[in-house]
Amino acid sequence: MLEEYILKLGRIQMTDKPQVDKKRIIVFAGDHGITEEGVSAFPSAVTQQMVLNFANGGAAINVLARNYSIDVTVVDVGVNGDFDKALPILHLKVAKGTKNFLKEDAMSEEQLNAALKVGKELVIKAKSDGIQLLGIGEMGIGNTTSASAITAALLQKPVEEITGRGTGINDSQLKHKIEVIQQALKNRDIDSAKPQDLLRRIGGFEIAAIVGVALGCVEQRLPLVIDGFIATAAIAIAATIDTQVRDVVFASHKSQEKGHRYLLEYLQLKAFLELEMRLGEGSGAAIAMDILDTATTLYNQMATFESAHVSKKA
Amino acid sequence: MLEEYILKLGRIQMTDKPQVDKKRIIVFAGDHGITEEGVSAFPSAVTQQMVLNFANGGAAINVLARNYSIDVTVVDVGVNGDFDKALPILHLKVAKGTKNFLKEDAMSEEQLNAALKVGKELVIKAKSDGIQLLGIGEMGIGNTTSASAITAALLQKPVEEITGRGTGINDSQLKHKIEVIQQALKNRDIDSAKPQDLLRRIGGFEIAAIVGVALGCVEQRLPLVIDGFIATAAIAIAATIDTQVRDVVFASHKSQEKGHRYLLEYLQLKAFLELEMRLGEGSGAAIAMDILDTATTLYNQMATFESAHVSKKA
Repeated sequence: MLEEYILKLGRIQMTDKPQVDKKRIIVFAGDHGITEEGVSAFPSAVTQQMVLNFANGGAAINVLARNYSIDVTVVDVGVNGDFDKALPILHLKVAKGTKNFLKEDAMSEEQLNAALKVGKELVIKAKSDGIQLLGIGEMGIGNTTSASAITAALLQKPVEEITGRGTGINDSQLKHKIEVIQQALKNRDIDSAKPQDLLRRIGGFEIAAIVGVALGCVEQRLPLVIDGFIATAAIAIAATIDTQVRDVVFASHKSQEKGHRYLLEYLQLKAFLELEMRLGEGSGAAIAMDILDTATTLYNQMATFESAHVSKKA
Repeated sequence: MLEEYILKLGRIQMTDKPQVDKKRIIVFAGDHGITEEGVSAFPSAVTQQMVLNFANGGAAINVLARNYSIDVTVVDVGVNGDFDKALPILHLKVAKGTKNFLKEDAMSEEQLNAALKVGKELVIKAKSDGIQLLGIGEMGIGNTTSASAITAALLQKPVEEITGRGTGINDSQLKHKIEVIQQALKNRDIDSAKPQDLLRRIGGFEIAAIVGVALGCVEQRLPLVIDGFIATAAIAIAATIDTQVRDVVFASHKSQEKGHRYLLEYLQLKAFLELEMRLGEGSGAAIAMDILDTATTLYNQMATFESAHVSKKA
C-alpha cells in the first residue's frame, strides 16, 4: 500500500519524486443549530472551549502536530461565540452556528458559498506557502448528527444503520438522535436535493469548508489526508460534485463512528489505521500524514534488489 | 486504544509515566532445510544476501529505523553461509540452517536451547543498554513454511487455511507447499508434541530466538512489539510456554500472510496497522513503535478537559 501511495502522490504532484516534507492540518470549527434538539452528549459551548484549547496548544491535534512537524491552522468558520482577535486562529466566521435543520435549512445559499470559499482559499494559501500535503480536521458539537444525516441521504441508507454515539450519548439519546434525523430528512425534502443542496439544508459550516478544501485540492493538485466521520462525509459530498476528488484524497483511520465505514466503501478508499479514535480534530490524519512521509523516505532511500545484489525469484 | 497502550506500558514498566524514547529492533536471520522441497519463491541464498543488505543499511527496516531513531541489531542465528566478522551484525550462529523437517527434526535439543539463549541474552543486553521498547523482525527464506506448520499444529487448524504465498509463490507452488506441510506434520508426530518440542521439530533458529526474546521480556519487564506472521507464530509458542507473554507484547500490523489473523485472535491481540505489508524484517513493528512513542507524548503533553476549562457532559 505504501508503494501505491507513492504512485498516487506522484500522480497528484506530477513528479516521480513526490515530496511531503511541508505538511499542514486545517481544523475547521462551527456550531450546529440542531443541538437544540438534545442530540449531543456535550453542551454546544464545548465547540468554543475546544477552539481555545487548540489555540493554547493543549489538544491532541496540537501534540501530534508538534510531534510530527505539521503546522496547524485553526479556523473559526461558524462558532457560536466571539474570540479575542489576537488568538492564533483564523477569524473567518460565516455565522454564529447553523440553523436547526429539523425546523429550517441549516444555511442560506450565500452562507454556503461563503463557507465553500473559505475552504478553497485556504488551499490556495497552503499551495503558495509551499505546503506539499494537507490534512483536515474539525470541531463542532452536533456535527455527527449533520454528518449522519448527510451520509444516510447521500448513500440512501437507513438512518439507524449510519448513526452512532458521537462523543458518547447513551441508548435512549441515540434513539432520539435517530428519530430527529429521520424527521429532519423528511422536513428538508432531502430526496429531491442535489449534493450541494443537501449540504445547504442539513450540513454545517465546517463541513462546507472541508468540501471547499477538497474541491480546491483538485484544482491546486494538492494531496489531502482526511480524518474521521465528519471529514469523510464532507469528502463524499465533494466527490459527488467533482469525481476527481477521490484522486487527491487519502483515507487515514477507521473511526469508531459507525457511518464512517460506509463512507469509505462509497469512496473506495482504504483506511490503514485502526486505533478506535473518535476525536475528529485531525488526530488520525496527523498519524497518517507521518506514515505517508515515511513512505516517501522508504521510496527514496531503500536499495533495490538489483543494487543490493539479491537473487531473483527461483 | 492509545490510552490502553499507555496503561499496558505503565503496567510493564511499573510506572505511571511510561517511557519508550530508547527503542531497538532485533532482526534474527536463519535458513531452513525445508527449502530443499521447493516451497519458496526465492532461492535460499537470499537470506544471506538480505543480511548483507541489512548490514549495509539499504533494507526497509534500516530506512524505517533511521527515520524513527530506533537502533537495529542484526543477528545471524542460523544463516547458511559465512559473514565477514567485521560486518555490523552479531555472529551468534547456532548452525548453518535447520534440517529439512519433512525428513527429520529441524534441530537438536542443544540447538534449540542455544537459540532460545541467544534471544534471552539479547533482552538482558537491551535492558542494560537502557532500551525501553523492543521490536522484533526476522529474515529466513522458507520460514513461512515453518510458521504455517507451527500455526496449524498449535491452533489445530487445517494447513490449507493457514498457509499463504510467502514472498510470492504461484497456485501450484502453494498447493505443493500445503502438501509438504501436511506430510511433515505427520512425519514429525506433531500431535504428541509440547510447544517446545514443536519448535524443535518444525521451527527455525530465528523463530526459537524470538521465543527466547519473548520469555526474556517477561523476566526483564520490557515491552515487545511484534511484526508479522513469523514473529507472531514465535510469540504464540512463547505464550503457550509462559502465559505472561501476552502481557508484555503489542501487535503492530496485519500481515498479508493469511495465518497471521488466526494467530492474533489466538493471542487476543489487536493489530492497528493495515498496510498489506509482508516483509517480516520488522517494518510493521518499526511504524507501530513510533506510534506507541506518540501515545506517550500525547499522554504527557495533552491538556485535560479540566485544565482546558472544557464543560462536562450535559
